[in-house]
Amino acid sequence: MGKMVYFFGGRSAEGNAGMRNLLGGKGANLAEMANLGIDVPAGFTISTEVCTSYYENKGKYPENLHQEVTENMRKMEEVMGARFGDSENPLLVSVRSGARVSMPGMMDTVLNIGLNDTTVKGFIAKTGNERTAYDSYRRFIQMYGNVVMGVDGEVFESLIDEKKKGKGVKNDTELSSSDLKELVKEFKAVVKEKTGKLFPEDPEDQLWGAIGAVFCSWDTPRAVSYRKINSIPGDWGTAINVQAMVFGNMGKDSGTGVAFTRDPATGENIFYGEYLMNAQGEDVVAGIRTPQILPSLEEEMPEVYKSLEGIRGNLEKHYRDMQDIEFTIQEGKLWMLQTRTGKRTAVAAIRTAVEMVKEGLITEEEAIQRIEPSQIDRLLHPMFDPEFKKEVIAKGLNASPGAATGKVVFSADEADKLGSKGEKVILVRLETSPEDIHGMAAAQGILTARGGMTSHAAVVARGMGKCCVAGCSAINVDYGKERISVGDIEVKKGEYISLDGTTGEVMLGQVPTIDSEILRVTRGRMKPEESVLYGYYSKLMSWVDKVRRLGVRTNADTPEDAAIARRFGAEGIGLTRTEHMFFGEERLPVVRRMILAATEEERKKAADELLPMQREDFKGILKAMDGLPVIIRLLDPPLHEFLPSHEELLVEITKLKLQDGDDREIAEKEKLLQTIEKLTEMNPMLGHRGCRLGITFPEVYRMQARAIFSAASGLIKEGYNPIPEVMIPLVGHVNELKLTRRDVVEVAEEVMKENGVKMKYMVGTMIELPRAALTADEIAQEAEFFSYGTNDLTQTTFGFSRDDIEGKFLPVYIDKKVLSENPFAVLDQKGVGELIRIGIERGRSGRKDIEIGICGEHGGEPSSVEFCHRVGMDYVSCSPFRVPIARLSAAQAVLREKEGNF
Amino acid sequence: MGKMVYFFGGRSAEGNAGMRNLLGGKGANLAEMANLGIDVPAGFTISTEVCTSYYENKGKYPENLHQEVTENMRKMEEVMGARFGDSENPLLVSVRSGARVSMPGMMDTVLNIGLNDTTVKGFIAKTGNERTAYDSYRRFIQMYGNVVMGVDGEVFESLIDEKKKGKGVKNDTELSSSDLKELVKEFKAVVKEKTGKLFPEDPEDQLWGAIGAVFCSWDTPRAVSYRKINSIPGDWGTAINVQAMVFGNMGKDSGTGVAFTRDPATGENIFYGEYLMNAQGEDVVAGIRTPQILPSLEEEMPEVYKSLEGIRGNLEKHYRDMQDIEFTIQEGKLWMLQTRTGKRTAVAAIRTAVEMVKEGLITEEEAIQRIEPSQIDRLLHPMFDPEFKKEVIAKGLNASPGAATGKVVFSADEADKLGSKGEKVILVRLETSPEDIHGMAAAQGILTARGGMTSHAAVVARGMGKCCVAGCSAINVDYGKERISVGDIEVKKGEYISLDGTTGEVMLGQVPTIDSEILRVTRGRMKPEESVLYGYYSKLMSWVDKVRRLGVRTNADTPEDAAIARRFGAEGIGLTRTEHMFFGEERLPVVRRMILAATEEERKKAADELLPMQREDFKGILKAMDGLPVIIRLLDPPLHEFLPSHEELLVEITKLKLQDGDDREIAEKEKLLQTIEKLTEMNPMLGHRGCRLGITFPEVYRMQARAIFSAASGLIKEGYNPIPEVMIPLVGHVNELKLTRRDVVEVAEEVMKENGVKMKYMVGTMIELPRAALTADEIAQEAEFFSYGTNDLTQTTFGFSRDDIEGKFLPVYIDKKVLSENPFAVLDQKGVGELIRIGIERGRSGRKDIEIGICGEHGGEPSSVEFCHRVGMDYVSCSPFRVPIARLSAAQAVLREKEGNF
Repeated sequence: MGKMVYFFGGRSAEGNAGMRNLLGGKGANLAEMANLGIDVPAGFTISTEVCTSYYENKGKYPENLHQEVTENMRKMEEVMGARFGDSENPLLVSVRSGARVSMPGMMDTVLNIGLNDTTVKGFIAKTGNERTAYDSYRRFIQMYGNVVMGVDGEVFESLIDEKKKGKGVKNDTELSSSDLKELVKEFKAVVKEKTGKLFPEDPEDQLWGAIGAVFCSWDTPRAVSYRKINSIPGDWGTAINVQAMVFGNMGKDSGTGVAFTRDPATGENIFYGEYLMNAQGEDVVAGIRTPQILPSLEEEMPEVYKSLEGIRGNLEKHYRDMQDIEFTIQEGKLWMLQTRTGKRTAVAAIRTAVEMVKEGLITEEEAIQRIEPSQIDRLLHPMFDPEFKKEVIAKGLNASPGAATGKVVFSADEADKLGSKGEKVILVRLETSPEDIHGMAAAQGILTARGGMTSHAAVVARGMGKCCVAGCSAINVDYGKERISVGDIEVKKGEYISLDGTTGEVMLGQVPTIDSEILRVTRGRMKPEESVLYGYYSKLMSWVDKVRRLGVRTNADTPEDAAIARRFGAEGIGLTRTEHMFFGEERLPVVRRMILAATEEERKKAADELLPMQREDFKGILKAMDGLPVIIRLLDPPLHEFLPSHEELLVEITKLKLQDGDDREIAEKEKLLQTIEKLTEMNPMLGHRGCRLGITFPEVYRMQARAIFSAASGLIKEGYNPIPEVMIPLVGHVNELKLTRRDVVEVAEEVMKENGVKMKYMVGTMIELPRAALTADEIAQEAEFFSYGTNDLTQTTFGFSRDDIEGKFLPVYIDKKVLSENPFAVLDQKGVGELIRIGIERGRSGRKDIEIGICGEHGGEPSSVEFCHRVGMDYVSCSPFRVPIARLSAAQAVLREKEGNF
Repeated sequence: MGKMVYFFGGRSAEGNAGMRNLLGGKGANLAEMANLGIDVPAGFTISTEVCTSYYENKGKYPENLHQEVTENMRKMEEVMGARFGDSENPLLVSVRSGARVSMPGMMDTVLNIGLNDTTVKGFIAKTGNERTAYDSYRRFIQMYGNVVMGVDGEVFESLIDEKKKGKGVKNDTELSSSDLKELVKEFKAVVKEKTGKLFPEDPEDQLWGAIGAVFCSWDTPRAVSYRKINSIPGDWGTAINVQAMVFGNMGKDSGTGVAFTRDPATGENIFYGEYLMNAQGEDVVAGIRTPQILPSLEEEMPEVYKSLEGIRGNLEKHYRDMQDIEFTIQEGKLWMLQTRTGKRTAVAAIRTAVEMVKEGLITEEEAIQRIEPSQIDRLLHPMFDPEFKKEVIAKGLNASPGAATGKVVFSADEADKLGSKGEKVILVRLETSPEDIHGMAAAQGILTARGGMTSHAAVVARGMGKCCVAGCSAINVDYGKERISVGDIEVKKGEYISLDGTTGEVMLGQVPTIDSEILRVTRGRMKPEESVLYGYYSKLMSWVDKVRRLGVRTNADTPEDAAIARRFGAEGIGLTRTEHMFFGEERLPVVRRMILAATEEERKKAADELLPMQREDFKGILKAMDGLPVIIRLLDPPLHEFLPSHEELLVEITKLKLQDGDDREIAEKEKLLQTIEKLTEMNPMLGHRGCRLGITFPEVYRMQARAIFSAASGLIKEGYNPIPEVMIPLVGHVNELKLTRRDVVEVAEEVMKENGVKMKYMVGTMIELPRAALTADEIAQEAEFFSYGTNDLTQTTFGFSRDDIEGKFLPVYIDKKVLSENPFAVLDQKGVGELIRIGIERGRSGRKDIEIGICGEHGGEPSSVEFCHRVGMDYVSCSPFRVPIARLSAAQAVLREKEGNF
C-alpha cells in the first residue's frame, strides 16, 4: 500500500474533492475547502484503503500506519499551534468516520480526544473556561467509554440524572464546573467497574482506541443493514478523519451551526440555516434544543456572518451546486467543519437547477443531470384539497413536502408492522434516530416534536421523498399512554391524522387529496402562468426535449388517458390494449357469445355486434392523438378470461344438484362448464392467446381491424389526421405474422376503398417471446415496426409467472440476494436485455428502417429507459404519469453516453 | 429453358441416374439402364422443368416442346424399327409420370397410345395376334377415355360385364377377339355419348392428350394430399416418360413380372419376385391374378431367366443397393421397364446392409447410411407371444412384418374414423388402392384377399412399417354383410382378429404380444447366438459406435430402466427424475407432510423420513450404471402436484356443508384447501418449482443430496464405482446455482467425511430457460456440466405450454402451415436451436471443458440428434428404447457432416 494518510489545514491540503473514493466524502471536501483557502481545523484523513486492508487482515493495521499518523499529528500540532497531550497548551482532536457516500448517524464518532487529568488543566489555563473544560472532559469519557470501551450509554446518563437530582437542578447546563469534575471521576470509576479496565490516560492510547472503534463501526449490524437498503458495497470501507477540535461551547462568542446555500425545501436562493450559540455541533443535529435561524446571526455577529456569507458564495461557485455546510465559531473565529452537496426536495431540485442555469453557474445539460427522475414523479404526487375544511391542530416545520394521511403510531417497529400489511400510518416521535429508519420507510409521513430543518427526521425524510413535519413543539407526545395532545385535543394510537409537509400543518382525521400543482396545470385546471413551479418545470422539460434522442409515447386505453398523456409530452401511443374494452357491462355478454359460438358464422355475427362499439373506442383515442401515431394491439388475453370462473360455476352446480335445482338450469350451466373446461389451460400465459387467437379465429382480428380503419376513415372525413398502427401480439414465428398481417391489410384496403379515403398506416408486432427476438430478421420481413413487450419477455426469459412469483419465491430471492431487484420493475439487462439487443440487431438486418420501441412497464423506469437508449430503440412507451420521467431519463441517457458513462 | 426432352434406348441414353431431379426417378433409371447396355424399350423423358413451367404458365407448354418431342419420336421409331401411326408396322407408346420420389399409384398412366382402326390392323399383321390387338385397343380406349377424356371407369366396366353376360362367360379372358372388337366400337360410342366428342383417331392427338392429362394428374386432390403426408414440395413437378410399348400379353412366350434383387422382407440374398405369363404389368401390380414366383421362370424360360439373373447382378453391382425391377418378356425377348431402390422391411434393411459390406459392395459407413432410424425403432416392436394358444384361421403372404391386433373394419373411412378415436382396427379389403391410404395409416394392420408381395397393399404397408398379410385367398370377404368367413368360421365387423406379418398368419381374437427378438436378446431372455437378426443388428451397431462422436446416455428413473438402457448401449444416465420417486404410495403422505410443514423444523423432519427411501432409489440406479456417470436431477415440479386437486376438494366441502357433514372434517378440509390455494399458481410451469424450491426450502435439496452421496458411499464400500452427477433444475441466474450448489457440495463433503470415502462427482445444471442460455458464460462458472432441457426450453422460447397446445391451436397451426411440425417432437433448430448454440458457445467461454448434453425428449429424435452433433454437444440422452436410434442417428450425423451435407 502506498500513501495512507492525507493532511489538510493551514489553507492547503494533500487531498482534494476528486479523491472521494480514497478519502471519503467528508475528508475529500475538508481537503478541498482547505485548498480553497477556507479555514478548517487542521487534521488528516486515513484512507478507505486502510479500512479495507484492516478488514482483510482481520483487524491488523498496515505496517507504516502508526508512523504516518504520528508524522501527521506533528503537522497538525504545528498548524494549530498546540501539542497533543501537552500540559499547558493541549491539542484536542476528534475521530470521525467518512465513507464515499453519506451514511448519516450510522457510524461512531469520538470527540475531545487528548483530555486527561493533566491536559484538562492546560485547557483551563489556555481558555480560562473551567466549566467548558470539565464539560468537554465528561463528554469525552462518556463517548469514549461507550463507543470504544462498550459501556452502555444509559449508565452515564443515570449518573448525570443522579447528580442533577442531588443538586436539585433540572438541566445539564445548570451543573457547575465542580459538579462536572465530580462526574468525570464517577464516570472513570464506572468504566473501571463495568470493563475491569482503567480509563486510558495516555492521549496516544486514546487516539488509537478511537481509530480502531471507528473502523469497527463500519461493520455494525445497523451500518450493514443501512448499506443493504441503500445498495452500498461493503468493500468500499470508510475513511477516518482525525481533526483538531474547535469549540462552539466556549461562551457567548462561540456557537455552531448548519446551513444550506439555498432553501432545500423550495430551492429559493436564500442563505438558509440554523445555529445555536454556546453549543457543540451534536446539539444542533440531535434536535434537542430548537435552534435560531441564520438571519439572527447577522445581527448577533455581523463579521462572522459576513465571512460565512462569503464562504457560501465561494463554495457554490466552486462546487457549482447547492451545499450543505457545518461551521463552528470559537471565541469569534469561524471554522468550517464540513461541506457537501445538499439534499433537497423535488421542488427545490428543479428550481435550483433552473436558476443556476440562469445565473450562469451550470449548463442546461448539467441542470438536466441534477434532477432525479423520481423527483419528477414526486412533483406529480397529490396534495391536500384546499377546499376541504381542515382542522389544523398544530403547525411545525415544513421539513419535507407532501401530503400524508394515516393512523398514528409511536414506534418504528409498529410503523413497519402495520405498513407492511398495507396500512397507512404516520410515525410520531419526539425526535428520530438512525434506529427508526425502517419505520420511517414504512410510514406515509413523519411528525416530530423536536428538531429543526436539519434534524435527523428532516434530512432522512427529504432523502426518502417522504412527507415530514418536524419540531412541532406544540404537541405533547406521551409514549407511555400512546397518545398526543394539543391543549384539550387528544389523538390516540390508531386514530387518523394528516400532515402537510409543504406548510407544516398537522390536521385531525383524513384530509382528502387533490392533484398537485403540476398536475392541475397539465389537466388545464390551473393556468401555467399562475404556477411558479410549473414555470421551472416546463423550462427544464424544454431543455430535456432538446437533448433526448428517444421518442416518448404512452400506453393508453381511453381517450382521457391519451389526452392527459399528450399534455405530459407523449408523442403518440405505444400501446392501446383492446381487451380492456371487452369488459364493459353491455359488451361482456356479446363477447361471451363470440367466444362460445359453435360455428364461424355465429362467431362472426357476435363480432359484428361488437364492431360499432370498438369503432367508437378507437375513434376517441385516434382523435385525442390526432396527427400522432397510435399503436393498437389486437386481442391478446386467453378467452377464458372473459368467462365466469370454472370453480365458482362448479360449486354452483354442485349446490343446485344437491338442492334439487331446476334441471334445465343445471343442464345449461353444465354446458357452459364444459365449454369453459375446454378453454381452461394449465398455463394460460403460454396458451391460446395473442395471435394464436387471430389465427384460429380470424373473424375476431378482422372485426378489430375493421373497427380501427373505419374509425380512422370517419375521422379523415371530419378533417382529422389519424395515424393508426396495428400491432399483432405474441408472435413467435414469422408465419404467424404473415397470416394475421395479410388479414389486417386486406381489411384496411377494403375499408379505405369503401370510404374512398387513403391513409398512412403500419402493421407490426410485439416482440415478447424469445423466439421472436432470435428470429427477428425473418419477422422483420413482415413487420413495419417492433414493440418490445418486456412484461411477457421477462416472463418467458426467466420462466417467471408474474402473477405467481410475488407472494412465493421472489421475496426470498431478494432476501438471499439471488436477484437484486424485481425484474418486472427494473429491466434485467443481462438476460432480457440481451434478447432485446439481439432482436434489434437482427430486426434491422431484416428491415433497415424498422421502427423499434418498448411498451412493457419498463418503458417508464429510468435505468430501463437508459438501456433502451443505449441499444438504439426509437422510442419508449409508458403510462401517462410516467411520460415526464421517461423524457427526463431519455435526456439523461444521452448525457451519460456523452460522458462515456455507459 | 434449355433442353427439355432426353432420349434413351438402343443401349445408350442422354440422361443418367444422377439426373433424378430433372428426369424423375423412373426416367433417370431408364436412362441409366440403357447406358449400362440393358435392353429397355426406347423412349424419352420430358423433364420436370416442363411440368413446373406448365403450371406457372397456366397449362401452356414451353415454345419448343412440340418440336423436341417430335424429334425424339422419330429417334424412337428408328431404334424400335416401327413407326408411330403406321398402318403396317405401327409403334405404340406409353405415357407415364415419374417424379423425383415415387408416388405409387397417385398419378395417371396411358398405355397403347397409337392404336386406331388403321394401326390396329398393322398390329395384327405384325404380331399375328388379333385378340391381343383388340384387347390392347379396348384397354387403350378405356384408359384414355377415363384419364384423358374424363369418362367414369365404371361405364366401361359395365359394358364389359354386359358383354360377358351376353356371351355367358365369367372372365375377361374368355371373351373372343370379335367380342373385344365389338367392345372397341361400344367404348367409342359411349365416349361420344358422355363427352360429346369423338374418340381421337390421330396418334399425335392421342399422344398430346395423354401428356397433358399426366401433367394435370400432378395436381389432383389425392396427389396433393399424398405429397402433404409425405412432405413432398409441390413445385418439384413430375417428369413424363414416353416409351415404346412392349407386350407381355403376346401369348405363351410372353409375360411380365416384378422382382427384388434380394428378399425385401428378410433381406436374404435370393432373387425374389413374381411374374405372370401372357399378361400386362398392371395385372401383376393390381393383384387381381395371383402370380407365380420367380424360380418357376427358370424352368419355364431358362434363357430369359439367365439374362434376368445377369441383369440382377449387374444392377446391384452398379447401384450398390437392392433393386426393385420390372420386366416384360415379349415373344421370348426380355425388356427391362424399371429399376429403383427397393423398399424393404427393417429386418431386411439391416441384413442387406451388413451382407453387402461382407460382399465388398458397400463400406461400413454406407451400410450405416442405409438404415433409417425409424427402422431400428421397428426392430424393437413387440411380436406375438409364441406360448399363446392361437387359433390360426388362414395364412396369406407375409407382406410386411409386425404383430397387429384390432377390430375388423371393411372400409378405409371407417378405419380412419375409429383409428383417430384411438381404437385399434384391422383393415380388411379384397385389395387396396391409393384411395385407401388414410385408412391404412390409421389401422394397426392390413389384410387383403388378393395380390402378391408387390401388390399395392404390400408395398404401401412396408413403406409405412405397418403389418400386412396380403393375398390371403382362403378368406371370403363380404363387404355387403360386413364379415369375413373361412369355412364355417365367421368374423363380423367389430370383432377382433390378429395378424402376424412375419408369418402371414391370420388369427381369431386378440393374441397377446411379447418382446421382439432384438429385445429378448437385449433383456437377456434369449442368447445372442440364437438370433440371426441380432447378429446383423449388433454388427451394424458396432460400426455405428466406431463412427459416432456424440455420446449416448439414457433418461431412467428406475434400476430396471437403467439396466435395459445400458444393454441398449447407453453410456450413462443423462437424467434421473427424483420426483417420480415421490409418488409412491407410502411416500406421498410423507411428501405431503413435508410440503404442508409450518416450520423449517417440521419440514426437515419429514424430509428425514424420506431420506432412507431416496437413498435406496439412488443406490439401485447407481449400481445398475456402475462405472458410468449418473445425472440425478433434484426436485423439479411445483409442490401442488403432490397435493389433492383444489377443485375436487372444493366440491367435497360444498357437499359436506350442504349435507350437514362433520364440522371437524369440514374444518380440516378447509385448512388443507387454504394451503393448496396458497400453493396454487396461475401458470405453474413458470412458478415455484425447480431450483426455486431448493432456494426457498434448502432442507429438501440437502436431503436429496444426502441420499445421493450416502447411496454412493455405501456402494463404494461394497466395491462398486458409482459416479453421481447432481443436476440443479430451472436455473436462470447464476446466483441460483451458486446457492444450491454450495448446499450440495457441503452435504457431499460431509457425507464423504462421515463415511471415510472419496469419490468423483460433479454438480451441474439444466439449461432450460432462455436466460440460462443467454448468460451461460456466468452460469458455467458454477456448473461442471450443462444439460439442455429442451422440453422446457421449447415452452419458454415459443411461449407454448406443452400441456395446452395439443388440443387447442397446434392442429390449426399445422393445418395452416404456420408450423411444419410439433416443436416438442422435433427440435425447432431456428429458435430453440439458436439458444442452444448461444448457450454452448458462451458456456464453453466460461468453462472450457464443460460437459454439455441434452436430456429433453428431442434427444432420441434423429434430426434433433444430428443438430446436437452439429452444435458440438458431448452427448444426447433419451429414453431406453430410443438409445439405439440415437446411436445410429449420431453416426449418420458424422457421415453427413463428412459429405458436407449440413
